[in-house]
Amino acid sequence: MALPARTDAGIYFIGVIRTPWRRRRDCPKRGSLDGPLCSVVVDEHWRAGLSGLAGRRRIQVLYWMHLARRDLVLQVPSGAGTTSGTFALRSPVRPNPIASAIVALVEIDGATLRVRGLDCLDGTPLLDLKPEFAPEPSA
Amino acid sequence: MALPARTDAGIYFIGVIRTPWRRRRDCPKRGSLDGPLCSVVVDEHWRAGLSGLAGRRRIQVLYWMHLARRDLVLQVPSGAGTTSGTFALRSPVRPNPIASAIVALVEIDGATLRVRGLDCLDGTPLLDLKPEFAPEPSA
Repeated sequence: MALPARTDAGIYFIGVIRTPWRRRRDCPKRGSLDGPLCSVVVDEHWRAGLSGLAGRRRIQVLYWMHLARRDLVLQVPSGAGTTSGTFALRSPVRPNPIASAIVALVEIDGATLRVRGLDCLDGTPLLDLKPEFAPEPSA
Repeated sequence: MALPARTDAGIYFIGVIRTPWRRRRDCPKRGSLDGPLCSVVVDEHWRAGLSGLAGRRRIQVLYWMHLARRDLVLQVPSGAGTTSGTFALRSPVRPNPIASAIVALVEIDGATLRVRGLDCLDGTPLLDLKPEFAPEPSA
């Protein structure tokens, strides 16, 4: 299908994700909390935003699937054999290729987080980090 | 802090979210799966992408917090009293104001999903819908 002539908002790449997977076909279908150690490297510009994140067991990572097509509303996932709507799949192929993963936070070393649970290519741009749940309101 | 001079990628608004909350101060801190019914209205252009989503109990909704500041790496959440890094909070204020919620899917009526679990302003732009989990591989 045709993509709209223009986008509606812009996003910043705030860092980069380092994983063992160099080719798309090597990436796991889905991350696992006991998968290999990956690094989330936050740009120096945004580093102060990590303050208070240490000690969280799980965090949510949003990243940009920069090699994925954006023009398919229907697709046949590999191994499935049947056509499905894009929004019924977690495939990277989607109008806005924003991936979301809950990962286990192993440690924070400066502006680098070591995590388990990612599924993406080495070099994937980072969009956001959030705690898995909002902090409890203080009493 | 200063935002970078330019963004790195563009996103499409693929629909709009209808909620009972018309002012930011009325929004709940966090959505609840037994919260009020909200509507996620997918643009006609992308509607075919919903195929196969019916029957899912929970889906992930990504949306764009269009009124939020993007230039704070440190903030004092209301009610907290202490400064925290942006990435240690789920506040809408962040470099890329992409919110993520797991919602209960009540029904799909054409290109409109009725869901419970959102927390955002009426009129919030929609970015993506995904099933909560990837479909099981077919045998």
